[in-house]
Amino acid sequence: MKALNIVPFVSVDNMMKLVLHLGIERVLTELAGYIEADFLRWESFDKTPRIASHSPVGVIELMPTSDGEMYGFKYVNGHPKNTREGLQTVTAFGVLADVDTGYPLLLTEMTILTALRTAAMSALAARHLAPRDARVMAMIGNGAQAEFQALAFKALCGIQEVRLYDIDPAATEKCVRNLSGSGLKVVACRSSEEAIEGAQIITTCTADKQYATILTDNMVGPGVHINAVGGDCPGKTELHRDILLRSTIFVEYPPQTRVEGEIQQLDPDHPVTELWQVIAGKAPGRTSASQITLFDSVGFAIEDFSALRYVHEQLKTLPFSEPLDMIADPDDPRDLYGMLLRAKAKAA
Amino acid sequence: MKALNIVPFVSVDNMMKLVLHLGIERVLTELAGYIEADFLRWESFDKTPRIASHSPVGVIELMPTSDGEMYGFKYVNGHPKNTREGLQTVTAFGVLADVDTGYPLLLTEMTILTALRTAAMSALAARHLAPRDARVMAMIGNGAQAEFQALAFKALCGIQEVRLYDIDPAATEKCVRNLSGSGLKVVACRSSEEAIEGAQIITTCTADKQYATILTDNMVGPGVHINAVGGDCPGKTELHRDILLRSTIFVEYPPQTRVEGEIQQLDPDHPVTELWQVIAGKAPGRTSASQITLFDSVGFAIEDFSALRYVHEQLKTLPFSEPLDMIADPDDPRDLYGMLLRAKAKAA
Repeated sequence: MKALNIVPFVSVDNMMKLVLHLGIERVLTELAGYIEADFLRWESFDKTPRIASHSPVGVIELMPTSDGEMYGFKYVNGHPKNTREGLQTVTAFGVLADVDTGYPLLLTEMTILTALRTAAMSALAARHLAPRDARVMAMIGNGAQAEFQALAFKALCGIQEVRLYDIDPAATEKCVRNLSGSGLKVVACRSSEEAIEGAQIITTCTADKQYATILTDNMVGPGVHINAVGGDCPGKTELHRDILLRSTIFVEYPPQTRVEGEIQQLDPDHPVTELWQVIAGKAPGRTSASQITLFDSVGFAIEDFSALRYVHEQLKTLPFSEPLDMIADPDDPRDLYGMLLRAKAKAA
Repeated sequence: MKALNIVPFVSVDNMMKLVLHLGIERVLTELAGYIEADFLRWESFDKTPRIASHSPVGVIELMPTSDGEMYGFKYVNGHPKNTREGLQTVTAFGVLADVDTGYPLLLTEMTILTALRTAAMSALAARHLAPRDARVMAMIGNGAQAEFQALAFKALCGIQEVRLYDIDPAATEKCVRNLSGSGLKVVACRSSEEAIEGAQIITTCTADKQYATILTDNMVGPGVHINAVGGDCPGKTELHRDILLRSTIFVEYPPQTRVEGEIQQLDPDHPVTELWQVIAGKAPGRTSASQITLFDSVGFAIEDFSALRYVHEQLKTLPFSEPLDMIADPDDPRDLYGMLLRAKAKAA
């Protein structure tokens, strides 16, 4: 019988082992499958915008959700200035729990897992929204998320070429280096304009917390799919408002995206389509070759839930966790204090 | 230099060691001191009612707060039926984080810590509200929280005798056994009426999720302080409404208590006093010998913050934690994917 006090913990080291064991493209593909399955039963989830605690330098958020059988939440921070101090902009961990008992089933690092699920989500959205023959993607912003995006679009959408641009050439160099041997054609560009040449998909993924204009209106031609990843909190956007007005906009969860996404620049009643409806066949995705589609990605709790569920499932057959003595488990549940007394007697 | 990927983790085993090392009454007293200090700067905290996910059999909650320098949250479940399955009604864990970087500073079990802080909070409230000469406390409900309450009232309020009653005699027997040798006079009673004989303080702490009537109106005489711990979620109360109408009611955070506490039975504008105002000298506590004072305790995030802060402080000199590899920490923060590649090269 399983010890009641033990919660399996996936460390950063074990998460890397798990991803390397399965192979990153397989993990991205399977994660997208889990997200898709959960988006298909969207209405069965408890949904709430994330609970954010803002400070002048960043934000700490809790993102809970539940499907009635399992409950998941993620702790995640966003501190753009961290990079300058040698720290991650975004770090995360998460917990999956059993709704029936309230006991945690899994504690896991989610910095790597969030990078994976964000990329899987982007590629899943693009599979429904991007031109079917898309083979070239521009990637503006070549930070921590960039390689994950590139590989997810390769694995899920058949992208063959990524065109990289970052205001910091070192970031682009890092990305080129990391993607060599991936099977992708990788082109380092010296401007956003150069990066988007011939691209059917444009991914924006920059980190500065400000109203930025990574793309201006005249850069975006008809028929393009924009995967806007970096505009994901109040005061942080990447696209010129005019692009939004020309695009058909798809979002995860409107109450959250209207506050955090690119569409914070628009009227609160500007029409958007919920992505789950497209995936479920309840709303159209791309309807014409000339349409500009925009996935205004901010990251929603259900995606983390899917990722937690995926890791939990993998651990049924793979050894990449360690036991954590996290739950007090006295023999008699009402005898919590007696457990202390017995520990004392044992130590004496 | 501290490894950036490491978060100190306090297991259940280490929490017991910490409490036994310092002594439980000392821990209760010091915890009350930390809570008092935080209540004195109440207005400097981000406050939000807890975020609850309800199911037919229980609730899972996240309780975040921040003072602008540190951020804390607790995960806690409440599943009254768990006891029958050999599980804890309430289990919890929590995290303290640095607001400046968003990085976690501490992960700790909080099942034991919550029992401690709840008792410390009750005794702190009683120190401001109970008759000064109170020496006898009735304890109705002798479950997991009971001994902690008894010892906190001994350490902080000078209680010398506890009179125990539970509908299950086995719970009372357990409590009598655990408190033998504590220095308290412990009296097992066969009814609530017997338990409250001569008691200046009545603590109610039962677990069933229902509108219960642990105390009826005629049982409560003038001058008594009621410490109502068990009525702590919607649909779960312990006191007859008429008692509330005769009492001066003190609460932690009205927006939460009006939903979760005994006062869910009253009109939403029924006058209550915020306990922090009493502690800060901004509102009166007990004003007469005949007054019935009622602390309608539900447990608020700031108390958990205080408890996390206390444990974090103890770990500066005590060895009761273990390092957890929870934060992905690539040498270059933008090179998360490169960390994976290097792990692969190392394993090859």
